[in-house]
Amino acid sequence: MENHIILITCSDAKGLISKITTTLFYNDVNIVEMREFVESQTSRFFMRLELSGSINKDLVINKLRDELPSDAQIQISLKAKKNIVILATKEYHCLSDLLLKHHFNELNANILGVIGNHETLKDLTEKFNIPFHYISHLQKSKLEFEQEIITTAKQYNPDYLVLAKFMRILSEDFVSHFPEKIVNIHHSFLPAFIGASPYRQAFERGVKMIGATAHFVNNNLDEGPIVTQKTVSIDHTFTVDSMIEAGREVERIVLADALKLILDDRVFVSDNKTVIFK
Amino acid sequence: MENHIILITCSDAKGLISKITTTLFYNDVNIVEMREFVESQTSRFFMRLELSGSINKDLVINKLRDELPSDAQIQISLKAKKNIVILATKEYHCLSDLLLKHHFNELNANILGVIGNHETLKDLTEKFNIPFHYISHLQKSKLEFEQEIITTAKQYNPDYLVLAKFMRILSEDFVSHFPEKIVNIHHSFLPAFIGASPYRQAFERGVKMIGATAHFVNNNLDEGPIVTQKTVSIDHTFTVDSMIEAGREVERIVLADALKLILDDRVFVSDNKTVIFK
Amino acid sequence: MENHIILITCSDAKGLISKITTTLFYNDVNIVEMREFVESQTSRFFMRLELSGSINKDLVINKLRDELPSDAQIQISLKAKKNIVILATKEYHCLSDLLLKHHFNELNANILGVIGNHETLKDLTEKFNIPFHYISHLQKSKLEFEQEIITTAKQYNPDYLVLAKFMRILSEDFVSHFPEKIVNIHHSFLPAFIGASPYRQAFERGVKMIGATAHFVNNNLDEGPIVTQKTVSIDHTFTVDSMIEAGREVERIVLADALKLILDDRVFVSDNKTVIFK
Amino acid sequence: MENHIILITCSDAKGLISKITTTLFYNDVNIVEMREFVESQTSRFFMRLELSGSINKDLVINKLRDELPSDAQIQISLKAKKNIVILATKEYHCLSDLLLKHHFNELNANILGVIGNHETLKDLTEKFNIPFHYISHLQKSKLEFEQEIITTAKQYNPDYLVLAKFMRILSEDFVSHFPEKIVNIHHSFLPAFIGASPYRQAFERGVKMIGATAHFVNNNLDEGPIVTQKTVSIDHTFTVDSMIEAGREVERIVLADALKLILDDRVFVSDNKTVIFK
Repeated sequence: MENHIILITCSDAKGLISKITTTLFYNDVNIVEMREFVESQTSRFFMRLELSGSINKDLVINKLRDELPSDAQIQISLKAKKNIVILATKEYHCLSDLLLKHHFNELNANILGVIGNHETLKDLTEKFNIPFHYISHLQKSKLEFEQEIITTAKQYNPDYLVLAKFMRILSEDFVSHFPEKIVNIHHSFLPAFIGASPYRQAFERGVKMIGATAHFVNNNLDEGPIVTQKTVSIDHTFTVDSMIEAGREVERIVLADALKLILDDRVFVSDNKTVIFK
Repeated sequence: MENHIILITCSDAKGLISKITTTLFYNDVNIVEMREFVESQTSRFFMRLELSGSINKDLVINKLRDELPSDAQIQISLKAKKNIVILATKEYHCLSDLLLKHHFNELNANILGVIGNHETLKDLTEKFNIPFHYISHLQKSKLEFEQEIITTAKQYNPDYLVLAKFMRILSEDFVSHFPEKIVNIHHSFLPAFIGASPYRQAFERGVKMIGATAHFVNNNLDEGPIVTQKTVSIDHTFTVDSMIEAGREVERIVLADALKLILDDRVFVSDNKTVIFK
Repeated sequence: MENHIILITCSDAKGLISKITTTLFYNDVNIVEMREFVESQTSRFFMRLELSGSINKDLVINKLRDELPSDAQIQISLKAKKNIVILATKEYHCLSDLLLKHHFNELNANILGVIGNHETLKDLTEKFNIPFHYISHLQKSKLEFEQEIITTAKQYNPDYLVLAKFMRILSEDFVSHFPEKIVNIHHSFLPAFIGASPYRQAFERGVKMIGATAHFVNNNLDEGPIVTQKTVSIDHTFTVDSMIEAGREVERIVLADALKLILDDRVFVSDNKTVIFK
Repeated sequence: MENHIILITCSDAKGLISKITTTLFYNDVNIVEMREFVESQTSRFFMRLELSGSINKDLVINKLRDELPSDAQIQISLKAKKNIVILATKEYHCLSDLLLKHHFNELNANILGVIGNHETLKDLTEKFNIPFHYISHLQKSKLEFEQEIITTAKQYNPDYLVLAKFMRILSEDFVSHFPEKIVNIHHSFLPAFIGASPYRQAFERGVKMIGATAHFVNNNLDEGPIVTQKTVSIDHTFTVDSMIEAGREVERIVLADALKLILDDRVFVSDNKTVIFK
């Protein structure tokens, strides 16, 4: 039997943990893992519980709702693979990492399809029996281009869109179709080197480390809530090209780490930040 | 008003979190922070709670004892500075780190005294107005040497003895006077390079990283429960001396990190391992 | 036009750099990159030079030989892709990393073939059009098993054999066929956890970090010259399985880093150590 | 007998290494260590040599000048401790690290004096018998304040001014008195969080790592050539205060690492970048 995950956010109040755990106890639900956090700025309470055994979802949600503040958001779901659609351009390293983990059953997600604005990664994707949709951005408006992607992605009804080095900037309208559901890997340790060619910027500035950032996409370029970040040391011998090469490993790991957390329902978004129960 | 810390360990059972948090709730205690873990091998439950507000300690312990399995160990203490005595030999870097943090009120402990088996660090210690006890290991038996340290240390009634690069091996008898109360910094990433001259061993083996390990001391040399570890990269240009120099920074940080966790009551010892609620 | 690489080792003597660089200068050879090191224990001199432009190899070697101590080993080779054969068992992560980099022309090697003692990775290997040789270790002697591998590998005349999580221990005789030509990835930060099941050993010991080591294989298990090592932090929540999962990323990176250095002729073996010009 | 260090920069040309090493060889100078680099953007050649034995400095410089391009800058100096003056404000951690290393003879510099714009660190400094100069920035113009510092610092004729968490922004005029001679520690991984309160900025942005940067000071705030950088992971539980606390260790290490390189004459400044021979 599968476990369930409960995610709760509400305004903080005294006795929340007692009320929640007692409600679960009286409904014969066993807690396997529990984490909570109160964000002091916003006075918001966040909790993630993993439960074993069967559970009457509606009943438990109603009972919890009786006990919790009126603004409580409560979600109970079977601990199961999420469905994702990946967008990519030409670089293979992030996509292949996900395809391989998926192929060998190590990704906590079903990859339903890959959308590319170049055909470069079609062959790779299809080696692993995943549908590849080539949607070029050429000879059409940005609106048309994005509409094609939206239509293609939505037919899969994905839980998340993963931008695995997708090199086109998405419009506010596009993002509004997938709120808090788009995960991007940016090739710098944000907020350093926002925008295009971060490795070129890093080279010009003469930094001694480069990095990558996985974040949810909102309406401001490279400004969304950060999930994971990692840096690696470089030195004066690095060219832009060798930074790009070294950066690939970091990008791949940062995106993989972020997805592992997101797909396990361990990431809450709170305004422009994340609360993550590792 | 100060916060309190509750530490609980017991055999695992259904409903423990509910019982504990409800007991606290009905006794009007507010939970600020809570972490729990069930060790699957031993089926033991570990919990750390931080509470705000006043608390009737005896009452709460009795109420908890009524609710919890009979093997439960329950400790409630005011969140306050621990008392420590430091043992050192000739190297200054770990001792000075603690003396400085203490001097500038950043250490969650009172350093009551320093015991040295050399006089090298007397001047440094006294600069910061901490008593220094010179207890030489020369011209006396190991038993006599250790008895002098025990007598000197016990007069301070310390919560912990910190071996800040104390280069004498302590006997089983000595350790039995301070069970789970001695913290040591070993200059290798254990279990690599147990025993004497780990940097020399590392040099001979040609490793590409060196490290340090902070651990509780039990009766087997370098075998006690590990609290923190850290490594740093080296290369073929490193001599034993430059390893020692690079190692100092790692040792200092590893010991400081371990003490921060221990002094905050975040470390449980479970047989030869630690459960740490960061 | 391709660059050339000169590798020189000899006993140390005064004026070696001057003699070498002057010999190259008078033979109209341009130095692009130069690194040298004198190992103080052995008084051996190591040098790697990268040269641009055409070069009369035999002439230059002879001229250098005239100038250098009689024990000098001098190797001049075109900077070109090496040929490798990979041995694997069931785990895909190191093999796939190499296959993908090879497929996208980012590996400084030609993968000529893959030998597996299980069939698990046949499909993956053949997706990338690389021959897969299934050589089971079952129902035959170790000698027979190894002889089959030797015969298969030697038909490719590889520069290096890469053990990409090959889980059989190789005999002294096997190793003698490929001296300093076998690169292994071991799943611990050697010398910790030598031998079988290092993650199980790590779990039992309660360490706070795990790691991986890439090394040349010699006749003593896990004792060969270390090329690269890396660690990653873990905590008490890690099971053996989650250590294995976390370890995969480290193993992959450590092996990739080692091969990048080895394939670029940046690694000298000196007894049981390596001198590496990054 | 002490070693000497030769530092050379000039426009790149064929045969430079041969000419330099041969000149040294014919003048009976033994090379202990040698590193060179050609910066491809600027076509500039950088070389650092460490030499053993006595050396006729003027003769060797003249001989080298005959061989090298006319724009060559050649510096030969005894490998010896540099003289430094430290500027600080209220935070003790970087200053104390330098004072302690100096006290125990592990710093490759003489600390001649400490200048503070607060009196907070006077007592600490004087514990280690180093003169402390209290120069308040209050009730005087920035010009007057800086002039006092310049006068005080210059009487020591320091090789470097070290800003060990000196929290006043220095004017262009001030910097012009110590060109490429001022080393600063900035409490962020530049170019992220330039300017005031970087930890506050990091908190607001919700980053998952913080860091520090040691750099030479030029006329643009936080824009000078970077020497060393380091990051450390944080999570959503970090407040601004706990970031500041975690940041202290990073700042201390980054500044210590930078000074070790600078004081060993291993750092060249090339426009807004550094070439560092570790």
